[in-house]
Amino acid sequence: MSEVYALRRTRLRECCNAGGSAAALVTRPANVRYLAGPAPEGAVLLLGPAEDFLVCAGLPDDRSGQPRPDEALRVHVVPGTGGDPAVAAAGLAATGGADSLAVEEHHLTVTRHRALRSVAPGLRLADIGGAVEQLRVVKDEEEISCLRIGAEIADQALGELLESILVGRTERHLALELERRLVDHGADGPAFATSVATGPNAGRPGHRPTDRRVEEGDFLSVCLGATYRGYRCEIGRTFVIGTAPADWQIELYDLVFTAQRAGRESLLPGAACRDVDRAARQVLDSAGYAAALPALTGHGVGLEIDEDPQLTPGTMGKLDACVPVTVEPGVHLPGRGGVRIDDTLVVRPEADGGPELLTITTKELLAL
Amino acid sequence: MSEVYALRRTRLRECCNAGGSAAALVTRPANVRYLAGPAPEGAVLLLGPAEDFLVCAGLPDDRSGQPRPDEALRVHVVPGTGGDPAVAAAGLAATGGADSLAVEEHHLTVTRHRALRSVAPGLRLADIGGAVEQLRVVKDEEEISCLRIGAEIADQALGELLESILVGRTERHLALELERRLVDHGADGPAFATSVATGPNAGRPGHRPTDRRVEEGDFLSVCLGATYRGYRCEIGRTFVIGTAPADWQIELYDLVFTAQRAGRESLLPGAACRDVDRAARQVLDSAGYAAALPALTGHGVGLEIDEDPQLTPGTMGKLDACVPVTVEPGVHLPGRGGVRIDDTLVVRPEADGGPELLTITTKELLAL
Repeated sequence: MSEVYALRRTRLRECCNAGGSAAALVTRPANVRYLAGPAPEGAVLLLGPAEDFLVCAGLPDDRSGQPRPDEALRVHVVPGTGGDPAVAAAGLAATGGADSLAVEEHHLTVTRHRALRSVAPGLRLADIGGAVEQLRVVKDEEEISCLRIGAEIADQALGELLESILVGRTERHLALELERRLVDHGADGPAFATSVATGPNAGRPGHRPTDRRVEEGDFLSVCLGATYRGYRCEIGRTFVIGTAPADWQIELYDLVFTAQRAGRESLLPGAACRDVDRAARQVLDSAGYAAALPALTGHGVGLEIDEDPQLTPGTMGKLDACVPVTVEPGVHLPGRGGVRIDDTLVVRPEADGGPELLTITTKELLAL
Repeated sequence: MSEVYALRRTRLRECCNAGGSAAALVTRPANVRYLAGPAPEGAVLLLGPAEDFLVCAGLPDDRSGQPRPDEALRVHVVPGTGGDPAVAAAGLAATGGADSLAVEEHHLTVTRHRALRSVAPGLRLADIGGAVEQLRVVKDEEEISCLRIGAEIADQALGELLESILVGRTERHLALELERRLVDHGADGPAFATSVATGPNAGRPGHRPTDRRVEEGDFLSVCLGATYRGYRCEIGRTFVIGTAPADWQIELYDLVFTAQRAGRESLLPGAACRDVDRAARQVLDSAGYAAALPALTGHGVGLEIDEDPQLTPGTMGKLDACVPVTVEPGVHLPGRGGVRIDDTLVVRPEADGGPELLTITTKELLAL
């Protein structure tokens, strides 16, 4: 792995040098993880003019079997307690002879940025922008393999839940049960707060589980994901509780299914992000649900659950091969509930079989 | 509740006006919650010169029975999608005639701060500092009551775990089991990631659960907390697995217990924070464990699990009545494990019986 991290740092260094900075300070946790491997909480990465440092408040964990940061990196532990590793790193950069330091202005607070300036007044602070986030968009096969395992875990957890009795149980309990099963099957933990939504709550994006109990005739929508070796995936499905769905439920489900399929099928290298969004969105639009639609129909996943690219009507840019994204259109009708279908897929060229579906739980409308 | 929120906003407004700003923008989520009640994710609060606004990207949740923001506040929904409520609020402040806006520089990123400046170039941006955090330190009886219920829930969850069979179960599973029980007993959710540490991991501050299984003879240390109506409490206990603890385990436990009791007993209105820290710390120091001690022996709790005051050797300031804090000294011996004992208490005057212990699970050394 060490070569992978070193290569990523080289690419970032080239990008900073092109911007006129000989040194860079990476503070956003997912970016530190991407460039340095699993690091202690609060650790920052200094790409120095001569040498790179992982700067942290305490030593990396010494437990055997626990993930560790890249061993090729020098570790600098901030002396004393309560010191900010970012401030210490700026001091190191200044004493190391750097005259300019690129920082993550979208992550540093105004207060921390000022503390950096005052510890190294001779250092010009530049903005690295979203450079690391952009490097993270296209995944290597090792990263995709982690997402694939995470998706398998989420499929297993969901599959087991469907075999259990659901009527009478609360959204909260079902969500916790799913999270326990994710860990049972080897996840580091849930990729995000598991959403279970019943009846009128079903299909609400980002619904937080309540004490409402599952009833006969409900729509039940579930959205969960596993974190595996730091990588986060997502799956969402909607079911009907009882022997037979009502006509309106079948119609709404078929519509969202059609929209989701249209989105999935448009995932090809070179496709514009907004065209993928439109493919899914126009199915729902033309059925009269324009107002009920959320701002996005999908997004990238990786070390964070919501990364670039965003699949929205306003996104510029095109998809590349090896970019994992969700496709997750849904419709929520206030007071009645709704449907949401969400997969994680990897963009692949048609020659390789087209988009690779990671979350393989059935998308038939199951009556549970 | 509406009067409570209005009073809190009045106190903040006085504080800003004294600093020369007629308007203030509160962005830190726990601060927004404190001043405006439960608000949609990403919502910000504008204390305008004339009127206050809750500014959010979407409408507050309309589900019956769900907590809602203060109804006395006007709600401004950012038009379109993807707009930053903080930027919209700065625009509102400028059009509302404010010439200066106090913002939370310790929470706003450099990038967001710049966006505020560019949407309202005529507006002078000042720093509100930790003004809201300072208002939050002393709790009212309604807030303490939420913490008390949360502590009861955590006590129940822990008590049930102790009655179950522990040997052979992994740290991860025990942690998930505890979190499920917290929700069973009415918590909104865990107050922080539950820590379960066995054998050589026991007593490590902030230990993240691993796949290590509980063995005979282990120390087992557990740290958990419930969130109840937004308020977060904390309890930590250490047990021994098996019929009888070893001599070194008894000695270490007694020492940490003595330190923790010294800390608890020094919690009185007017006590210096660092004296409370010293009361606990010197017991461990004089037994030769100075190097094994963490940076703090306790901290405030409330809408966040780690608030002011900090109980450290370097903290200035004194405790007031009605401030809830943890007292949580511990010793971890690398390779052997350790002990951690953690309570949430409320500072009360001696006339009222002294510190109020919220987490009442026994602190005897139980062999499980």
